[in-house]
Amino acid sequence: MDAITVGQFELVYNAFSFAIAVMGAATIFFFLGRSQVAAPYKTAITVTGLVTLIAAYHYVRIFSSWEASYTVLAGQVTATGVKFNDAYRYVDWLLTVPLLLIELILVMRLPQAETVAKGTKLGLLAVLMVVLGYPGEISGLSGTRWLWWSLAMIPFLLIVFDLFVGLKKSIASQPQSVRGLVSAARWLTVVSWCFYPVVFVFPMIGFTGSAATTAVQIGYTVADIVAKAVFGVLVYMIAVRKSGADVDTAVLAPGRKLAADAHA
Amino acid sequence: MDAITVGQFELVYNAFSFAIAVMGAATIFFFLGRSQVAAPYKTAITVTGLVTLIAAYHYVRIFSSWEASYTVLAGQVTATGVKFNDAYRYVDWLLTVPLLLIELILVMRLPQAETVAKGTKLGLLAVLMVVLGYPGEISGLSGTRWLWWSLAMIPFLLIVFDLFVGLKKSIASQPQSVRGLVSAARWLTVVSWCFYPVVFVFPMIGFTGSAATTAVQIGYTVADIVAKAVFGVLVYMIAVRKSGADVDTAVLAPGRKLAADAHA
Repeated sequence: MDAITVGQFELVYNAFSFAIAVMGAATIFFFLGRSQVAAPYKTAITVTGLVTLIAAYHYVRIFSSWEASYTVLAGQVTATGVKFNDAYRYVDWLLTVPLLLIELILVMRLPQAETVAKGTKLGLLAVLMVVLGYPGEISGLSGTRWLWWSLAMIPFLLIVFDLFVGLKKSIASQPQSVRGLVSAARWLTVVSWCFYPVVFVFPMIGFTGSAATTAVQIGYTVADIVAKAVFGVLVYMIAVRKSGADVDTAVLAPGRKLAADAHA
Repeated sequence: MDAITVGQFELVYNAFSFAIAVMGAATIFFFLGRSQVAAPYKTAITVTGLVTLIAAYHYVRIFSSWEASYTVLAGQVTATGVKFNDAYRYVDWLLTVPLLLIELILVMRLPQAETVAKGTKLGLLAVLMVVLGYPGEISGLSGTRWLWWSLAMIPFLLIVFDLFVGLKKSIASQPQSVRGLVSAARWLTVVSWCFYPVVFVFPMIGFTGSAATTAVQIGYTVADIVAKAVFGVLVYMIAVRKSGADVDTAVLAPGRKLAADAHA
């Protein structure tokens, strides 16, 4: 890696520490909040907490790798020769991106067959997307980066299209009290996901050297915080409101509701 | 950084260790105490514990950074050349100040729309305040410090005014048993928050060199302990008393109360 300024080094360093704090706090919030949602939504909240926990773990690793790559002494930053490990992000996404999709499907509480089919399809597409992105990420050649970026964009677009169209259809079947939140979750997914292919492209569109490194690291960190922690809070709020709505429905038609809960 | 005395170094070092102990203990207290408050107050107590947990994390980082900045050997303190990372405080505040405001709003248990509106407005103002303060904090020039201090004071005053006036109005709607505590929380917020802009000003009003560093670090640490841990205990006491008050109300009018809880 080429010469990085002290300011760039510190910006990335503090952003990684911030991500550890956000992901760690979000995990505790979801795990404690799990007791506040009705039984059919507990798995969705467990998965939401796992996503931020896995991310917290990887940000601890990423932070240490960044710290090991440079020495800052008397206002001078020097590369130590230890390589900053980009792969942590891809290992993280391999796990968290399918789980993110599953938490959203679970909180929608679709019929069981549809939950399994949609979870499997979107989960596999997400794995394919991450695997196809990696060879591009580690390449310094613009041509190679564009090739793998284009290939990864195929599953990416299939997922985003499915969520955007699929969620719009299912909003009508959700209780009135959560339609606004589900709509917000739909938009947040699309907007936050679009960060990733854009950040990937930074080094191919003029950002070079340490400016590219800084822009990519800050970009992915912001995208992760929005797509995992902020998105998780929305999923949690949907689960809390639907828990309340379900209690009301149970009072009106307890037999039907209890049978549905038993299968959830 | 210029020559610091052994006494100054040790005072700051011990204050940071004290803050780790206070924030860590407060976190466990809130997380365990969460089971002792009624359902509608659990989120307020979860957030209260997250604030002290995030602060504990950052004080561990701040402590390590302080330790790495100096070597004390045979009664002599020497700067190592490793920069003390001031940014941890701002990264911490970026998260904890909005959360602090949210815990206070949640424990007041206002109508849902008002909770969301007030939380969003005060949360965004808090982020703006912290972001505007940072460029001043890292500057050694008095003029620059005063400029950013003045800009950060705009959202600061808006928040404090909103809390001071807004909380006074809502005290009347709180159960008799907690009015004294809510009033105390209101005053504690205003007084502890006023520490921060005063500490910020230390280097601009005559404190120089290591005396300024020491005064700023001790000042922020005391302010953090009061605004997060002590304030959190007040929020917890309000939640415990309101839980009791709500149970009483539920006994008098159980139908109304159960319906309200289901939506909380």
